[in-house]
Amino acid sequence: MSGSTISMGRYLFERIKELGTEHILGVPGDFNLTLLDEIYKVPGLKWVGCCNELNGAYAADGYTRIKGSPAALITTYAVGELSAMNGVAGAFAEHAGMIHIVGMPARQMQKNRVMLHHTMAPNMDHSIYIQMAAPIRQDHAFLMEDSTMAEDIDRVIVSCVQSRLPVYIYVPADVVSVQLDAKRLETPLNTQITNPDSKTEDRIVEEILDLIGKAENPTILADIIALRHGGSQLTKQLAEVTQFPSYSTPLSKGIIDETKPYYNGCFNGRVSFPGVADGLESSDLVLNIGPLLSDSNTGGFTRYIKPENVVRLGHDFCQIREETFDGFHFLPILKRIVAELESQPQKFNLPRQSAKPKVEPPVLNKSTSGTIEQSFVWQRLGKFLKADDILLAESGTAQFGMPDSTFPSNTRYITQIFWSSIGFTVGACFGALIAAKELKHSGRVVLIVGEGSLQMTVQEIGSYIRYGFKPIIFVINNDGYAIERAIHGPEQGYNDVSMLWDHQKMLEFFGAREETGIKGKSRSAKTVEELEDILTDEDFASGKEIQLCEIFMGKYDYPWRLSEQINVAKERMKQAAAASGAASVTG
Amino acid sequence: MSGSTISMGRYLFERIKELGTEHILGVPGDFNLTLLDEIYKVPGLKWVGCCNELNGAYAADGYTRIKGSPAALITTYAVGELSAMNGVAGAFAEHAGMIHIVGMPARQMQKNRVMLHHTMAPNMDHSIYIQMAAPIRQDHAFLMEDSTMAEDIDRVIVSCVQSRLPVYIYVPADVVSVQLDAKRLETPLNTQITNPDSKTEDRIVEEILDLIGKAENPTILADIIALRHGGSQLTKQLAEVTQFPSYSTPLSKGIIDETKPYYNGCFNGRVSFPGVADGLESSDLVLNIGPLLSDSNTGGFTRYIKPENVVRLGHDFCQIREETFDGFHFLPILKRIVAELESQPQKFNLPRQSAKPKVEPPVLNKSTSGTIEQSFVWQRLGKFLKADDILLAESGTAQFGMPDSTFPSNTRYITQIFWSSIGFTVGACFGALIAAKELKHSGRVVLIVGEGSLQMTVQEIGSYIRYGFKPIIFVINNDGYAIERAIHGPEQGYNDVSMLWDHQKMLEFFGAREETGIKGKSRSAKTVEELEDILTDEDFASGKEIQLCEIFMGKYDYPWRLSEQINVAKERMKQAAAASGAASVTG
Repeated sequence: MSGSTISMGRYLFERIKELGTEHILGVPGDFNLTLLDEIYKVPGLKWVGCCNELNGAYAADGYTRIKGSPAALITTYAVGELSAMNGVAGAFAEHAGMIHIVGMPARQMQKNRVMLHHTMAPNMDHSIYIQMAAPIRQDHAFLMEDSTMAEDIDRVIVSCVQSRLPVYIYVPADVVSVQLDAKRLETPLNTQITNPDSKTEDRIVEEILDLIGKAENPTILADIIALRHGGSQLTKQLAEVTQFPSYSTPLSKGIIDETKPYYNGCFNGRVSFPGVADGLESSDLVLNIGPLLSDSNTGGFTRYIKPENVVRLGHDFCQIREETFDGFHFLPILKRIVAELESQPQKFNLPRQSAKPKVEPPVLNKSTSGTIEQSFVWQRLGKFLKADDILLAESGTAQFGMPDSTFPSNTRYITQIFWSSIGFTVGACFGALIAAKELKHSGRVVLIVGEGSLQMTVQEIGSYIRYGFKPIIFVINNDGYAIERAIHGPEQGYNDVSMLWDHQKMLEFFGAREETGIKGKSRSAKTVEELEDILTDEDFASGKEIQLCEIFMGKYDYPWRLSEQINVAKERMKQAAAASGAASVTG
Repeated sequence: MSGSTISMGRYLFERIKELGTEHILGVPGDFNLTLLDEIYKVPGLKWVGCCNELNGAYAADGYTRIKGSPAALITTYAVGELSAMNGVAGAFAEHAGMIHIVGMPARQMQKNRVMLHHTMAPNMDHSIYIQMAAPIRQDHAFLMEDSTMAEDIDRVIVSCVQSRLPVYIYVPADVVSVQLDAKRLETPLNTQITNPDSKTEDRIVEEILDLIGKAENPTILADIIALRHGGSQLTKQLAEVTQFPSYSTPLSKGIIDETKPYYNGCFNGRVSFPGVADGLESSDLVLNIGPLLSDSNTGGFTRYIKPENVVRLGHDFCQIREETFDGFHFLPILKRIVAELESQPQKFNLPRQSAKPKVEPPVLNKSTSGTIEQSFVWQRLGKFLKADDILLAESGTAQFGMPDSTFPSNTRYITQIFWSSIGFTVGACFGALIAAKELKHSGRVVLIVGEGSLQMTVQEIGSYIRYGFKPIIFVINNDGYAIERAIHGPEQGYNDVSMLWDHQKMLEFFGAREETGIKGKSRSAKTVEELEDILTDEDFASGKEIQLCEIFMGKYDYPWRLSEQINVAKERMKQAAAASGAASVTG
């Protein structure tokens, strides 16, 4: 810093620090090294290296989900940013945005279209990768002009925080040292969410309060957008003050405290426990906070909530029965509603418990011995959880299985059932561990991953160990991609993965060994008895060292929710094919 | 097949089989499963699963480089295709194209913009990922119309073979069973390269022959485009018939038989052994076959070949001294030239050996004990090679070190010094192993990778073992990203990687253990003596089982070529900055 100026690099990291961020994730590369130097100049900021960029993007996503503010991810030109793409796209789809900072060739090199490594013939336009990422970001800053750099940085960071979607900052190598006005930093970024028109907001709030007051059989359906857009606490408060029967979805599980009498289950259309869909769909007022209406989050589009009975509060629209208000964000609205209800509960006849009995989940399988079955394992793993745990359930059987379980209070749950990229949780867990550390979170971090997904991203287990983290890792070993066997070709060779890996040696290989002084324990279970031994072992449950529990399960055994979801999808395909056939006959 | 029709899926794989392909690489996903079924219906075709899609793309690239015809890679919608992107981009940059087949949602789902998993809000356009990949492919077929599918498939496969660049085929799930005209398969694809105008081609051939006849001090500079576009054998023949002093580049090393008296070294501008640049740049006729003029393949743009002394034969242009013929491909031209020279060598006064003595590489380090140094290790590893070996040198120190060594005859060398994506060779090696198997190649496959690069893509070592391959793997363990330490921030923490991995346990972890019956051996060397013991062990050299040799080297020891290349680049940066500063003063 010279006088009242500050280098662009340091300016950027000061702004990121302002969000409460303490760790910058990424992978170094020759076009970002001088930028990385600036991290060390900001007190309280640390660099965390990931094994590769896809894992880095997954980690950034996981960090964002736990921290509640966007992670910063740094990659290098072309090779790095392209490797990260699927991870960034997933964060876009599921609103777990990050600030993705990409080092680039110096401006003069770009202007001269120099054929540097990582560029691409034929035309040597250095900015083609910027174009490629357009659909997976909310905004971007391409720092080519000294005079607008500071504004550009500020704008995209604000945009990221507000939209919860990824943004990109492209930093040519020579730009890092450009001097910016340091005084700007005296004014904090304004990331507050406000709605476009306060009169309409007033009307929305009043109408919803009115509906709440009048409803005979109101319910709450809290979905992932509520969680991802910072509405988790308000949603919990809404449920608590109203005591309305409350439901989560496969993506948002945990957003409603599942130990509460008003929690009625995970609603996923036809793919729900008995009574769940009935309870919700017969409600005359469904307060649906933060809906995300993808196939696997709606039981394959088998939710039947009548428009006249629903209030939908999204991040970019609010809908009261059949009237939609585009561009309105639920957060200020929900805040006012909750404040109103909390300050005068009697006015709204609150708390108002349902006359109907709480929907209790069935116990699916009472095994005490023998083979570990899908119908058994998820409810059992649910019981292993403690209050405040962070739980990651991998795309595949884990994410279709976990809704069978009941979570303790304040379970922070990460799954990616919309984007559904296998291998995601292994990277996301790394970011979740970092975020938990920043938050001084007391709960354990528990990862449940299939052996096929693990093979996608396994190296990041090494990062857990490198940085001293101690998650509890369950590896579901069922001889291949079970989710795909369930969908198609159960016996086809393409659904096999290598069965030669010895997961019992994994923690050792990556660093938990006697000579490193890093403790780790690996165990495996082929029977219910063996699994019980592990799950009831206090040492295992303590999370004092990194531990792995490999659970062997049947190759052709699938969670019922997965099978049911697939049946629904196949039915839809048939109908579509029939419709399409009909169309081609008539058209 | 019903009557004279054939399913789209089988049609595609029959066409791929026609190229001589026996193995289809990829990762399954629910949008490509029914397509994968079709592979099994084509006799002689096999599925090979990769651990993840980036590694799969690297493997496809490695396969293409060894096989000489494009690999077929199958990924699934969104999550798969995006993960593969960096690998496909590298194959685009370095002309190691592949047929990338992507499974997609059924057409009706796409038309209805259904919010399936892997799609993306806000507009649910299912084709956005197709747009993202536009810059990294030569052509694509989006199979939406029954009537043009067969043509589209044929067109892009031909385009891939001819251009040596990646192409994409997007296959909606419902399209796999569409019936196409089977008779088309009776006409093989015409992938022959022809030039646009035979008269001009005649002139080019004649002028070059004339120059060859008259040159006093002719040389051959054979570069990677020659190799990548099927000109390797012709280039070897040109060198052999003329005996002109011949040179390779960092990317093309091995294209000239290095045991021959006319081989004069690896030319990389100022970053070459003494005598190499002088020898080439003083030539009055440089026959430059297949140039690729990127920074690290030209010594940072420090090649000084006068335009009046050069003939450049590219894949999309030919240049004779100062005249350029756009759109002309070297292959038909080189074929005619070689045929002419071979049929009447006396007419051209061939073979014509140089009056100058052959440029001999210096011996850089005669260590027989102690620390293993960069100046020692590459020449020593070069001596470990045998004729017909396939050698992969990872981006980083290995690719800057290997040019120090002299290769045996017919070394097939893979390095990626233009695209330079670290971790590449671990995936590429898998593809190279598959291609070598198809070719019944007798040589060994030798992989040299740094421990930092290995962490990017390590799981694919498990695939080598899964499929019974037995490469010899050297892991250069020098405590971090050495190439980046050399460039910037040698002591900065961002250049560190986990040093906790125990590479001696790696093969065991991935499957080479007593109980699996798969043999593997792991050893390590910290001194020259220990390394000699390993390299001179016949068992190790035999390649009868998968083996690993970990070589520990100094953290701040870099290959001289890397340091020199960086010096050149820094000089260029300084000049650019000065020029840019001057411009802003005057402008």
